Amino acid sequence: MTGPTSKKTPSSLPVEDRKRVVIERVQPEIDSGRFPIKRVVGEQVLVEADVYADGHGALTAVLLFGEGENPSRWKSCEMTPLPNDRWQGSFTVSKPGYHAYTIEAWVNPFKSWRRDLDKKLQAGQDISVDLLVGAELVEHAASGAAEKDRKQIEEFAHFLKSRNKLEVRASLALDPDLAELIYRYPNKRFATRYDRQLLVWADRERARFTAWYEMFPRSCGENGKHGTFRDCERRIPDIAEMGFDVLYLPPIHPIGLTNRKGRNNAPMVQNGDCGSPWAIGSEAGGHKSIHPELGTLEDFQRLCGKASEHGLEIALDIAFQCSSDHPYAREHPEWFRRLPDGTIQFAENPPKKYEDIYPFEFESEEWPSLWRELKSVFDYWIEQGVRIFRVDNPHTKPFAFWEWTISEIRKAHPDVIFLSEAFTRPKVMNRLAKIGFTQSYTYFAWRNTKAELTEYFTELTQTEAKEYFRPNAWPNTPDILTEFLQTGGRPAFILRLILAATLSSNYGIYGPPFELCVSQPREVGSEEYLDSEKYEIRQWDLKHPNSLREIITLLNRIRRENPALQSNDGLRFHPVDNDQVICYSKSSPDRSNLIVVAANLNPHHAHSGWIHLPLAELGIPPDQSFQAHDLLSDARYIWHGPDNYVQLNPHVIPAHVFRIRR
Amino acid sequence: MTGPTSKKTPSSLPVEDRKRVVIERVQPEIDSGRFPIKRVVGEQVLVEADVYADGHGALTAVLLFGEGENPSRWKSCEMTPLPNDRWQGSFTVSKPGYHAYTIEAWVNPFKSWRRDLDKKLQAGQDISVDLLVGAELVEHAASGAAEKDRKQIEEFAHFLKSRNKLEVRASLALDPDLAELIYRYPNKRFATRYDRQLLVWADRERARFTAWYEMFPRSCGENGKHGTFRDCERRIPDIAEMGFDVLYLPPIHPIGLTNRKGRNNAPMVQNGDCGSPWAIGSEAGGHKSIHPELGTLEDFQRLCGKASEHGLEIALDIAFQCSSDHPYAREHPEWFRRLPDGTIQFAENPPKKYEDIYPFEFESEEWPSLWRELKSVFDYWIEQGVRIFRVDNPHTKPFAFWEWTISEIRKAHPDVIFLSEAFTRPKVMNRLAKIGFTQSYTYFAWRNTKAELTEYFTELTQTEAKEYFRPNAWPNTPDILTEFLQTGGRPAFILRLILAATLSSNYGIYGPPFELCVSQPREVGSEEYLDSEKYEIRQWDLKHPNSLREIITLLNRIRRENPALQSNDGLRFHPVDNDQVICYSKSSPDRSNLIVVAANLNPHHAHSGWIHLPLAELGIPPDQSFQAHDLLSDARYIWHGPDNYVQLNPHVIPAHVFRIRR
Repeated sequence: MTGPTSKKTPSSLPVEDRKRVVIERVQPEIDSGRFPIKRVVGEQVLVEADVYADGHGALTAVLLFGEGENPSRWKSCEMTPLPNDRWQGSFTVSKPGYHAYTIEAWVNPFKSWRRDLDKKLQAGQDISVDLLVGAELVEHAASGAAEKDRKQIEEFAHFLKSRNKLEVRASLALDPDLAELIYRYPNKRFATRYDRQLLVWADRERARFTAWYEMFPRSCGENGKHGTFRDCERRIPDIAEMGFDVLYLPPIHPIGLTNRKGRNNAPMVQNGDCGSPWAIGSEAGGHKSIHPELGTLEDFQRLCGKASEHGLEIALDIAFQCSSDHPYAREHPEWFRRLPDGTIQFAENPPKKYEDIYPFEFESEEWPSLWRELKSVFDYWIEQGVRIFRVDNPHTKPFAFWEWTISEIRKAHPDVIFLSEAFTRPKVMNRLAKIGFTQSYTYFAWRNTKAELTEYFTELTQTEAKEYFRPNAWPNTPDILTEFLQTGGRPAFILRLILAATLSSNYGIYGPPFELCVSQPREVGSEEYLDSEKYEIRQWDLKHPNSLREIITLLNRIRRENPALQSNDGLRFHPVDNDQVICYSKSSPDRSNLIVVAANLNPHHAHSGWIHLPLAELGIPPDQSFQAHDLLSDARYIWHGPDNYVQLNPHVIPAHVFRIRR
Repeated sequence: MTGPTSKKTPSSLPVEDRKRVVIERVQPEIDSGRFPIKRVVGEQVLVEADVYADGHGALTAVLLFGEGENPSRWKSCEMTPLPNDRWQGSFTVSKPGYHAYTIEAWVNPFKSWRRDLDKKLQAGQDISVDLLVGAELVEHAASGAAEKDRKQIEEFAHFLKSRNKLEVRASLALDPDLAELIYRYPNKRFATRYDRQLLVWADRERARFTAWYEMFPRSCGENGKHGTFRDCERRIPDIAEMGFDVLYLPPIHPIGLTNRKGRNNAPMVQNGDCGSPWAIGSEAGGHKSIHPELGTLEDFQRLCGKASEHGLEIALDIAFQCSSDHPYAREHPEWFRRLPDGTIQFAENPPKKYEDIYPFEFESEEWPSLWRELKSVFDYWIEQGVRIFRVDNPHTKPFAFWEWTISEIRKAHPDVIFLSEAFTRPKVMNRLAKIGFTQSYTYFAWRNTKAELTEYFTELTQTEAKEYFRPNAWPNTPDILTEFLQTGGRPAFILRLILAATLSSNYGIYGPPFELCVSQPREVGSEEYLDSEKYEIRQWDLKHPNSLREIITLLNRIRRENPALQSNDGLRFHPVDNDQVICYSKSSPDRSNLIVVAANLNPHHAHSGWIHLPLAELGIPPDQSFQAHDLLSDARYIWHGPDNYVQLNPHVIPAHVFRIRR
């Protein structure tokens, strides 16, 4: 607390105490400005704040914004008052990277003066002195005005003081154009600047809207042979035709031999077992090398090129852990934890043991060299052209490491996308998103009931989380074959696909087994696949008539054609009088595109219900009919009013995806 | 963002990056710690925070607290984990003034080790190496241990490494007393300290629990004569008997003559009109002087003494504005605003004019001398023994001025209580409470319906506001005779009294007119009293049979006898199946005292309804009968179950105030 002291002269006192405007409760603002919010290029940032002062003076508030963490030049936009001392303004992020914003506000005596003059005129009070007061304010503006405006402002002041009739002078005093001119030269001596400079991180568009397809390259061969990058190339047109835009490959590095796991995670390897790609490192190299059986770096680059031709981007899996055969284990034992018996600590989560993997010891005294080396793994693959990384288990490495790594990488490459593969406690998942991960895996796979889905996606899209956490919804992964998919048959797969693709603008599938509705777990109660591709080569019959290829293709086309499905801000849930039926809508940011989804959550039985749409909120005139065009069946319904009936047989198709035509 | 750079050696890197624990969302915390929370001496501060780290390591979190803004010595209490990474701890504020608190947390390897050892034992795994790992951790604790513990800890480590049977060693490893011993010497090298030091301001108890009585001293005379402090003395026993503990006097300073207002706020004064006490200052002096007709400083001190004998404290009204006759206007024209015509600007809120008052010009260049002089007004009356001030219109003076003034005064006098008389926009009222005002006037007078009362008091008592805003509820003031009181007759007065006295632990009445149910406004649509005491002497017949003296006395006794009514934290509203009947309960902090109020909000007609009490939440065994003792009528009811019937005739009494006896 500063303040006047008897020894100071007025002129040496801090100006801080003379600032009368308070600016607080700025939104969006994450953890008092500790973290940036996220946008993609071209999106708007809508900023609100409480702005007020003592007394009755009129205020002016402006939103300041600029490029970079510390803009050298600020642009400004005047904010609009809302009820209850809340103010609002907005700006658009124009390019990738950081943008900064803050707020400035001041008591505006000329604005107060005009307001009060108007009231006094209406009450028929004498305003002769008021006009002189106004002239003083105008003269002050003149003293700070640009050359081109000064003359006009001086004439204005002169006229206010003139001997013209009071009414004539008053009417000029209230002229809105002249007011605008005066507002251009405010007295900001005691203006309050919000004490935090807030940041936006702007990504390229793919941060917000992607469809991922995961596959194991080694399974792309034929006749049981180990697949290669060349084999993968043959699959590219097919995956692109289905409408995916990211092709994600599990780790492509050499696989360790020591303690290699056998099929179905057997502790003992059989001859010829190929091991888990996540047990990284062998004599052939580590995180910057390619498993020899997949091909060469040149082959990998060819694959990337081919993918790119088809609009697909390759995402690599970065898993920071080592087989004991990894060169790091030999060259940098200081990066691992040595036990009292002289061995290196393998990974464990008692009572579970992962004998084929050494975790890095981030508490090592040699942590700076460890951090630099791990960051250089990203650098290496970025050099090869990769711009999307799916990061394995980031929650078991320090937050500070990720924050440093991601921010360092982005200095040169703001276009890199990081997907956080953390399935852990909610606050840890949120923190990873705050410190820089572009997208995040979610609990979607385990949210099955209407209440669960509604609560979870409301939290993700309508709380502060929406500012930094971009969900990427996966119905399955190589580690996750949910009970729902195990028991619900083909309708369950279709349902979870539709939910993932329409609830979340980013979604993905672990492709081949999903397309083929593979549902057999290793054992009852397990979410592991039987004969999991994690431990063996599986060659899939993707032409099988049971394939979901057609509906997948259709859904991806619907997503591309409907901007409403390309972001999550416009998601709203709507009541249905049947707990087995869920209904939600998505609007595009400009509200021109509106999708309504109604889905039967029960994969076994038909269900029907009345869905209730808040027409006014959705921009549908309540007294007019509107068309609900089911983009899955191509049927068109004419609806009238908020309540409409749906009936869904999961054995035909478990959902409607309506485009509403107003 | 810090982090390793290639030029730094590991040892010179900031330790910051090695801290793995995150501490965030600390509550209570007002505006990122910018303002203190409030408590009274003896109250608890319950602190919660999100505390978590990467990985699976067990954590320890402690709440640190101490006296003063920057404690020289911290005490600590270990926090308890709640679900979802939330932790909780508490401490008690022991004396008036500032107290600080913050949180420290660290990854606790010994705790993790014990947890994992237990799991491994249960899974029947080999633990021989684990015991050696544990011994290392114990040895580390020994190295930091106090002399008295070191030997025992070293023996523990030695035993873990010994050749004794694994089971014997393991069972000692899991011994809880030994664990406590090790926890006493944690490795806090990478401990995270929350980056803010948060403050509590602790007041004396009267900050939380007061009953105020407002009266005009000049009306205490007899036979139409101007009352004096001596006359006031005669009223003291009566006011004390009614159970009040604060006697609040409108300004006692000399009243200006120039532009003095006449009766009923007439612009022209009649001979003998005594003017408004808020038009402060005349030739007889200003804010540090006493209106000559009231008596001398000695008389004032006698009055204070007499009040004190009866357990009453005098509260003075500090209104920072001047009559044009105030010595300041002559001696310090620089503290006022001079208009272009050479006159001083009087107060106005266009089109309203207050010609008898000059506001201070806080934008004066001479603000430091103005601030110091105004603060010295408080200092002067504090020297005379006054410790409670009701501050007039604080919202028309800068926030920074109040924050400085109050904090400066409190350095020497932490027992001073400031009541903020601001009836303005909600955020401004909240800000005044945050910057230091002890209690605040509220919108209570205008909250009449069940929905209004429920919403408003829920906001005041169950949101963050409860940490800094202490409501003081007034059914009337000399400026506020509500429409409800104007039209509701005696039942309306009784109802509003009961609501004020039971909803808010601080409440007050503008005494004589309230006791006598005076309800005549100056004109229809106005909240001003007819023949308001603000402008004339009114001598009241307080012995009139219509007086509310008896019920006032009873209510104040009930408040004193029931701790539940002495704070607001325990306020909860309960459903009633009639919109005209409101029901709420208050529990004492230790939950031993429980009051349930049921009131008919309609002053004209009888109403009845079923009230529903959440028995479990209120600590009432759901399967047992309990007694509801109406402290107003002394009737006792035996109730059973959550739903009970009440019938309330406002012409008898509009409310029950039940003490529940479990």
